[in-house]
Amino acid sequence: MFEAQDSHFEKRVRDSFARQEAMKTINASLEKVAAGEVTITMPYQRNLTQQHGFIHAGIVATILDSACGYAAFSLMPANAAVLTVEYKINLLAAAIGKKLSAYGHVIRSGRTITVCNGEVFAYDDKQDKKIVATMQSTIMAVFDREGVES
Amino acid sequence: MFEAQDSHFEKRVRDSFARQEAMKTINASLEKVAAGEVTITMPYQRNLTQQHGFIHAGIVATILDSACGYAAFSLMPANAAVLTVEYKINLLAAAIGKKLSAYGHVIRSGRTITVCNGEVFAYDDKQDKKIVATMQSTIMAVFDREGVES
Amino acid sequence: MFEAQDSHFEKRVRDSFARQEAMKTINASLEKVAAGEVTITMPYQRNLTQQHGFIHAGIVATILDSACGYAAFSLMPANAAVLTVEYKINLLAAAIGKKLSAYGHVIRSGRTITVCNGEVFAYDDKQDKKIVATMQSTIMAVFDREGVES
Amino acid sequence: MFEAQDSHFEKRVRDSFARQEAMKTINASLEKVAAGEVTITMPYQRNLTQQHGFIHAGIVATILDSACGYAAFSLMPANAAVLTVEYKINLLAAAIGKKLSAYGHVIRSGRTITVCNGEVFAYDDKQDKKIVATMQSTIMAVFDREGVES
Repeated sequence: MFEAQDSHFEKRVRDSFARQEAMKTINASLEKVAAGEVTITMPYQRNLTQQHGFIHAGIVATILDSACGYAAFSLMPANAAVLTVEYKINLLAAAIGKKLSAYGHVIRSGRTITVCNGEVFAYDDKQDKKIVATMQSTIMAVFDREGVES
Repeated sequence: MFEAQDSHFEKRVRDSFARQEAMKTINASLEKVAAGEVTITMPYQRNLTQQHGFIHAGIVATILDSACGYAAFSLMPANAAVLTVEYKINLLAAAIGKKLSAYGHVIRSGRTITVCNGEVFAYDDKQDKKIVATMQSTIMAVFDREGVES
Repeated sequence: MFEAQDSHFEKRVRDSFARQEAMKTINASLEKVAAGEVTITMPYQRNLTQQHGFIHAGIVATILDSACGYAAFSLMPANAAVLTVEYKINLLAAAIGKKLSAYGHVIRSGRTITVCNGEVFAYDDKQDKKIVATMQSTIMAVFDREGVES
Repeated sequence: MFEAQDSHFEKRVRDSFARQEAMKTINASLEKVAAGEVTITMPYQRNLTQQHGFIHAGIVATILDSACGYAAFSLMPANAAVLTVEYKINLLAAAIGKKLSAYGHVIRSGRTITVCNGEVFAYDDKQDKKIVATMQSTIMAVFDREGVES
């Protein structure tokens, strides 16, 4: 549906993801990287839960924000850096199960602003999935800003 | 401005916070707990950053979501459990510095739905602060739902 | 995908829509009503524009909020009233053309809370369409509240 | 708190507001215009209601979106045009009374992106007010874009 401006977009996304220390800390992995679409997965971990034993809403948002941000980044020119302007997330069901999978995809890609939607699914032992969160986010391409490399 | 229904609200908030494993993992501390207002702080940590070395937007949201959720929880009756329905966060500046402080406060408290606003500030070595994020969130009181204790 | 609890849902939605005076004022029409899905259209009107001659973002949101609200309402029991808790809308392109069409659909339907997504499309003279807005909204079923009839 | 770059900001805001045909249609008036702060009021009107006789959430958002957009616009350079990127609104109470007053104010003003918060209050016959809505919005300065004049 979308065409990347930079043919090396997958390498660019994977290199940037590898620099996100937060992803290592929460054991998140970058799965699919396509033009305008990114999937990130994370196993259920007791040390990332809220008071009822569900994965904390903020952690659910962390993998989904990265999935949406990199979906946007995949369509940006090679010299762009990517920043999240804002996002909104609805928590639909308890984030509990074997693993979580966050899928971010671009709705509209502009020169400065990209808008993405995303969903997080929880998988149980039988690989059955249910939706646990949905996000709408606004991502910005930044050029030549100090401290913000592409 | 708000009056708590349950005089033991502070203990209830602190006990619940102590059960959030995610807060321990990111070294977040519960500071102020007042009726309708909660502050949570967290030191800057390299292992929670995104690709530019700023604290990841999702982690910024994690402490702010907890601050807003517990601000709402402080006004709920003793038998209520608290769940985040949704939130929206704008990232205003790079989340970098010595520590982050998240302040959540109730805008309107209803029987089922509570609406909160919140801000995250970054402090530098000289204790100067700047605003790095602002949130608007919708929190729900839940009663007698399996798996969701107060 | 969704099954209505109340077999008379379409009549219930159309009757309620007919009581929305705001819809008459902006010449909005209720098109499709299915279980969990509603479409509302509106001709382009100069008297609903912002300073550049585009339909005002708030008016775009007005038809999309109604589309999402009625999509949620279609799945509620016959004695429920419907209220919008909150919504978030991204404006993707200038809302200009021959007419606007707002499509609201349910993502998750709960006893109290329903979450919807929606899109507004602008049609030109040749019936080509482009997306102009996307919404994520939280809708609430209300029972026995004074002043809020089903 | 904020200082305007363009000393003629008030005239610029009032001229642009006067070109918003939607504001005339809903009888909205521009009240206060200060650097980073705008108030817009609107009488209660039966022809702008939803099915329970409250002002439609979309119309509440229309005046608040304009208030926030013009609060942002007041701080932009003289050659900038203003567009709403997105907003999120929580409806807190029934929008009913004698009149509504929307107050938009800037939280952070950047070169491209401005973030605003806003509230709508309903006034009754005795000039008592209650809060009915709260918004968080993202506004963009646009330069030299065809069809979008300052």
